[in-house]
Order: sequence, then structure tokens, then C-alpha cells
Amino acid sequence: MGGDFGPQVTVPASVQALLQYPELKVILFGDQSAITSQLSLLNQLQHPRLSIVHCEHVIANETRPSQALRSSQGTSMRMALDSVSDGQADACVSAGNTGALMALSRYTLKQLPGVDRPALVTAIPTNTDNKTWLLDLGANVSCDADTLFQFAVMGAVLAEQENSASPRVALLNIGEEEIKGNDLVKRCAEMLANSPDINYIGYLEGNELYSGRADVIVCDGFVGNVSLKTSEGVANLFIDSIKNAISTNPLKRLVAKWLFNDLFISLKQLNPDQYNGASLLGLRGIVVKSHGSADVAAFSNAIGEAVHEVKRQIPTKISDRLEEVLLERHY
Amino acid sequence: MGGDFGPQVTVPASVQALLQYPELKVILFGDQSAITSQLSLLNQLQHPRLSIVHCEHVIANETRPSQALRSSQGTSMRMALDSVSDGQADACVSAGNTGALMALSRYTLKQLPGVDRPALVTAIPTNTDNKTWLLDLGANVSCDADTLFQFAVMGAVLAEQENSASPRVALLNIGEEEIKGNDLVKRCAEMLANSPDINYIGYLEGNELYSGRADVIVCDGFVGNVSLKTSEGVANLFIDSIKNAISTNPLKRLVAKWLFNDLFISLKQLNPDQYNGASLLGLRGIVVKSHGSADVAAFSNAIGEAVHEVKRQIPTKISDRLEEVLLERHY
Repeated sequence: MGGDFGPQVTVPASVQALLQYPELKVILFGDQSAITSQLSLLNQLQHPRLSIVHCEHVIANETRPSQALRSSQGTSMRMALDSVSDGQADACVSAGNTGALMALSRYTLKQLPGVDRPALVTAIPTNTDNKTWLLDLGANVSCDADTLFQFAVMGAVLAEQENSASPRVALLNIGEEEIKGNDLVKRCAEMLANSPDINYIGYLEGNELYSGRADVIVCDGFVGNVSLKTSEGVANLFIDSIKNAISTNPLKRLVAKWLFNDLFISLKQLNPDQYNGASLLGLRGIVVKSHGSADVAAFSNAIGEAVHEVKRQIPTKISDRLEEVLLERHY
Repeated sequence: MGGDFGPQVTVPASVQALLQYPELKVILFGDQSAITSQLSLLNQLQHPRLSIVHCEHVIANETRPSQALRSSQGTSMRMALDSVSDGQADACVSAGNTGALMALSRYTLKQLPGVDRPALVTAIPTNTDNKTWLLDLGANVSCDADTLFQFAVMGAVLAEQENSASPRVALLNIGEEEIKGNDLVKRCAEMLANSPDINYIGYLEGNELYSGRADVIVCDGFVGNVSLKTSEGVANLFIDSIKNAISTNPLKRLVAKWLFNDLFISLKQLNPDQYNGASLLGLRGIVVKSHGSADVAAFSNAIGEAVHEVKRQIPTKISDRLEEVLLERHY
């Protein structure tokens, strides 16, 4: 039970998700008394599809992954991941320390065959009706072309569940013709172009991230993280700017409430922060990372993301697809 | 006379800049008849501070830098740069092909001593009263730590002209503690931390790009370009979203005009596209790159940027500073 707000958010979010998904069962790993007091507030102490596993310890937000690995015994994160690894649970959702979650996930669940490194992926909004899957978001700061290629395959498996049977895959690159891309991007482009199983559409620039032109956009974790965080920064700047523009005049504030009803809804959709639930893709199990600062609705979305991935058997699909694609590449 | 609109934009922009800067002289390199017809429209055929150098050729937007280098004789870009190199002009402003401008600038002007590679830098808006200088924006897709270090020194020289005598320098990095940065960023961080002449404040994440927390933000050209272009994409998405939110209702449109007067001004300031005039820093001369799609006001801003850099003798200051800093590092 991590995240910035702990059971105060994760418990009501779980109850909300249980309402939304009648087939869902939730096991809460954390401090029993803190969880119980939240459940009692919600009058849900006896929920038939909710159980609690008491954990003595928690991995702090500032704990380094290496340290988390060494001292994970008895922590809620480790116990939740173990429950996936031993088949007791189908997926783990956490708002805790990302680095620790990544390290412990790899340690407990292991990668799927053909996956060098798991990737952190999320769906970003676009100005079309479709979402776009962006990966990696920071799990891998340095990648080689093979790793990016695997990201493309894994992202396509996710995107084809919602967008189309043949999702358009692009590489995130920079604009100028000559200096188009570093060696990494160029090598991966060649691999993707030569893979008949992948609908590779070429390079996309940062300004097309939200254009809906691709279903999957692939980059290394450094670039993906900077890009997503930059988006967050610009979005917040816009929202602040709108608030400032109307805050000086009481009449404007009033009118804005009426005028901005639609607007704020659509602005909210554009804030990547609202798209909660980044998946760790490429593991032998489903792990969904929620923002640490997620509120009840956002954490409930992250649980929803896990439910979808379980239903769609994403790890099995990724494993099958990688086998096909890699076989094709080698023979 | 390049860019997407040619003399139609660059000529009126030059006339506007001449009005704004009484000490400015402009030499227009391009097709004499096209320039003359624009000047005639503006009734400025006899402007005392404006002259024309006819050029037979132009470098096309799709020309690769290597090709531009081979066939640059007689092109407006080459002749304008030569005029800086032989002291006839103090600065060159171009809305043409960035890759070609970079290659020809290096060829004709050469780098300053101590500069491995010139950087493309621009000032981005922040939600404070100060701007922030971001570099590199795509001139160098792969950098080593020494190059990033030089970028930091050059950026600080620009920032101290406007922000403060001891500009705060940050490295753009990703968020998670453990996986904080790739080797490049870590190595450069060490160099910066050990340089008493640089006010190094540490890492900044993408969401703090527009926070005003740093005066200079340094990254490699791939990351900088993706980050700036992403900002552009998000800004456009917001502006479209606002337009859509009000376009459905005629009354809302009317009210929005009144309400959005301030807002649109402040939104426009947030659009990095409006901050026209990226400088090629580290050359023995001043070269300012305008957006290809710049309008008259934006191209005039780019000329203004060149005027400021000439007045402030930026290349000399960079050269002096690099000598100091590098001496300090080696002895």
C-alpha cells in the first residue's frame, strides 16, 4: 500500500473498482489496521470479493532499487508480486516506488522469453478517437536496437486490442532530414522496416506525439520519460495560465465556469497525469504502476487497466508474438 | 531568402526590424527581382539602411547538408554566411534548411577555440518573469560529456546577459532516483559540479522545463529536439481543444472573445513556436535560425535576436569564458 497517500486512496479506489468490475477480486497487501479503518469508513468491512494480507513493512519512495531488492522480505510490494508469481493473483497494481517495482518485478516474475528488458508503457490521449501507446517511459535509460524492436512488438500487442488489427508503429525521432536520428534509431528503423509482421510507418517527431498518426510510438526510456514529463509541464502551464487569465475578474470567473465546463473536461483528458496506469510490459505476469500522486479515480483506473490486461492475457500474447516475429527474423 | 514563404515574409520583417532598431543595417541576399517587388509594395525601395545582394541560387529545404556543402557556391545562404566571415556583416539570420545552415556555418565561420560542436539554443518561456535557455535543440544528436559541458558554459553566457550574473545551470534528466540518468548525464553532472565558475544546480525533469527553476537547461540534441517539439504538440492540442470547446455554441464563441483576450495572449506566449530565433552558438560569428514557417513578426524577432547578440558580443564572451573555464579545469 504505497503511493503518496497510502490506504486513504488505494482502499476506496479498490472498492470503486470492485463495483465497476463484478468479476474482480482484490487482495490488499499492507497494514491491516490502516486498511481496516478505511474499509470501515466505507462500510465495506465484509466485502465478499476483498481480502487483506497484512504486511509488516513497506518500501519507501526514496529506497534505491538495489536496496529494495536486498530488503524486500515482508514488504507489501514484494508480497503482492509474490502472489502473482505463485498464481494466487493475476496482476499486481502499485502506486509505490517505480524503480523498486521494476527491480522486484524482474526478480520475482522474470522476463518473458525473447524480452531483454521490460518496458514501461502508457496510453496517451490524441486529438483523434484513438489512444497511442508510448514506450519506454523510463524503465530503460539506455537501449540497444534489439530492445527497441522488442518494445515495438510488445506495444503493438497492446494497441491491437483496442485500435486496429494492424497497429501503426512509429519511432520517435527528431526533425531535420540529415541529422535524422542517432544510430540507435536508424538501426531499429531498419529492423522494423524488414519485419513483415510489424506495420512500421517510419519516424514521428515530438509534435506528432498526440496527433494519433501512430498507434504505438517507440523510444528509449530517457527520451520517453523527458517527453511525457515535458507534456505534463506544458499541460500544467496551460491550466495555470487559464486560471490566471480568469482569476483577475469576478465576472470572468463566473462566465468561465459556464464556458469552461466542457473545456476543463477536455483539458483534463489532455493531461497525461490523468491517464493513470502504466504497465510493465514483458514480464511473466501483469504489473501496473499507478502514479504515486493518484487520487481515488486515477488509482481505480490503474486497477481497471490490470483487469483489461488479465482478460486479454497480454503476457501470453506478447510471448507468442515475440516468438513468431523473432523466428521470422532469424530464418 | 529561404524559409517556407521567402521574401514575402523576410522582406517586410526586415523593414519592420529596421524601424525597431535605428542602428541596424540589413543586407538581403536573394533573388533581386523578388526582393525588389516586395520592397516596392512597401514603398521602401530607397531605404538608406537596406541593400540587396543578388544570388542566383537557393538551398532547398530538402537538400542534405553534405550536398549543400558541395553545391553552396552562389546560394543566398552561403553568400550571407560569407559576408559574416569576411566582416561585411555582423550576423546572419536565416529561415532556411537547418541542417544546411549548421553545416555551412561550421564550414565558413569555424568553431570558436574550445568548442567541439556548435549548439542550437533558444529561450523558452517560463511561468516566472525570466526565460530559460534550452540547448541543444537538435544540432547534435549524439554528444559526449565534454560537449554538454561546453553547452552549459555557452548557455550561461547567454543567460547572464538577461537573467542574472550567476545563471543557474541544470541538466535535463529523468525522474526515478535509481535510474537517474544515463552515463552521459552522470559524467557531465560531475564535470559541472566540479567547476567553480558554473552555478550548477543539478538535474531537472521534463515537467520543470517551463518552471523557471533554471536559467540554462542542457541536454543532447535528440532529447532537446523531442522535448521542444513535444511542447509544441501539447500547446497546439490545447489551443485546438479550447477552440473546439467554444466552437459548438455561438454565444460561447462571443463570450470567449471577451474572456479569452488575455488568455490567448498568455497562451501564445507559451507556444514555443512563438519564441522565434534559435542561435547557433559556438561559432566565430553570429548565426540565428528562424523557424521556416515564421511570419513577419516572428522573423523580425529573429533579426532582433541577432541585433542583441551583436551588441553583447556573444562570440567573444563565449570564447573568453571557455578559455577561463577550461584553464581552470586543466590546472
